Amino acid sequence: MSDTRTNAGVDNISTFRKMKVWERPDERVIVLLSAGNLATTQAVASLLDERSKAPEDRTPSILATPSMFQTARLVGDTLKEVIRQAAIGGQSADAFGASFILGGQIRGGEPRLFLIYPEGNFIESGPDTPFFQIGETKYGKPILIRAHEMDLSFEETAKLLLVSFDSTVKSNLSVGLPLDLLCYPADSFKVGHQKRIEQDDPCFRAISDGWSQALRSAFKSLPDFEF
Amino acid sequence: MSDTRTNAGVDNISTFRKMKVWERPDERVIVLLSAGNLATTQAVASLLDERSKAPEDRTPSILATPSMFQTARLVGDTLKEVIRQAAIGGQSADAFGASFILGGQIRGGEPRLFLIYPEGNFIESGPDTPFFQIGETKYGKPILIRAHEMDLSFEETAKLLLVSFDSTVKSNLSVGLPLDLLCYPADSFKVGHQKRIEQDDPCFRAISDGWSQALRSAFKSLPDFEF
Repeated sequence: MSDTRTNAGVDNISTFRKMKVWERPDERVIVLLSAGNLATTQAVASLLDERSKAPEDRTPSILATPSMFQTARLVGDTLKEVIRQAAIGGQSADAFGASFILGGQIRGGEPRLFLIYPEGNFIESGPDTPFFQIGETKYGKPILIRAHEMDLSFEETAKLLLVSFDSTVKSNLSVGLPLDLLCYPADSFKVGHQKRIEQDDPCFRAISDGWSQALRSAFKSLPDFEF
Repeated sequence: MSDTRTNAGVDNISTFRKMKVWERPDERVIVLLSAGNLATTQAVASLLDERSKAPEDRTPSILATPSMFQTARLVGDTLKEVIRQAAIGGQSADAFGASFILGGQIRGGEPRLFLIYPEGNFIESGPDTPFFQIGETKYGKPILIRAHEMDLSFEETAKLLLVSFDSTVKSNLSVGLPLDLLCYPADSFKVGHQKRIEQDDPCFRAISDGWSQALRSAFKSLPDFEF
């Protein structure tokens, strides 16, 4: 799940999709979520896209990488290339920083999930750290830590993501609706449910309002502190 | 409420009280919570302390300011003085940054609460923004936003603070127990309940464990997302 809020200061707020999908039905699904400098993340996605359309120019293209690990390297290398070029003007590379979550599956391998740092290197999720966040991560982390379980269904996971995003949206102007949601069922090699969740989505409203209510009841149910 | 964790990197973690109290029974209670550079915050507290013991050296001392507003100015000015001196060596003043929450009451005035910025200027709480956070604020903010009400009792407020701190402690190594809690009943002109809450405090354990449980139940009680 990704939000769509971008800003260059509170007086310059826009909406951009931060989720990019490459799909070859029956062979690969690759999903890239981005955070950070929008010019950088768009350039990375555009370069990956362009090169997948003219694969002879540059191999492997993101539609031809042999594994998710090689795909993560390709995204990381493209990110380094974009940041290096942006910083040629003399500005610090930090100003152009961006990070990505890369998930997907390529036939012959398992579904894999990577977090790609602004430096272009990356880490992979595992049983100890089964999920990643990028961008404005702190507000939404406590509920993820507490409510995440390995056997959540897609429906429960979507609910958890909405609760986490909702906590962030309520606390910080730099994250905002609509949200983009994509599910990938393992070994399906095609994109599953996809949805853009707007402010007035009845399911989102029910979860957001219900959560405020449920939190307050949960809080009241606790014993008061005794002095 | 304040935590006690300070760090200069993950390999250099210590415990320091971040709550400082000046009291003149029947006349004033002033409480100062600090976040940021420990050398700066300790220097500010020490200077305020020293000068209150030799008030002829510098007036007004923090035990002689005529109002909470003037007390906030005194703390802000002392902070600027400390940061200015620290930066004489040529380092950026940002490296020595610190912020404070100042609360209290001086006879003749109402209880007042201020947030003092690293620049030494400050804002005051009001009905629209009845509480302040400093330091690692993001993890604990969503629950404050949702569960805070103006008519919470001291016991409920302490519970809310514990839940908010607990969310932060679970998410970030830079915040840690023990916690220091102080209550000031309006117009009492003396410090109310004071307590250091350790890891094994039974009340804290009940609230922390209960909250994990209550959150999970609250989460399960919400409708799942429907695709």
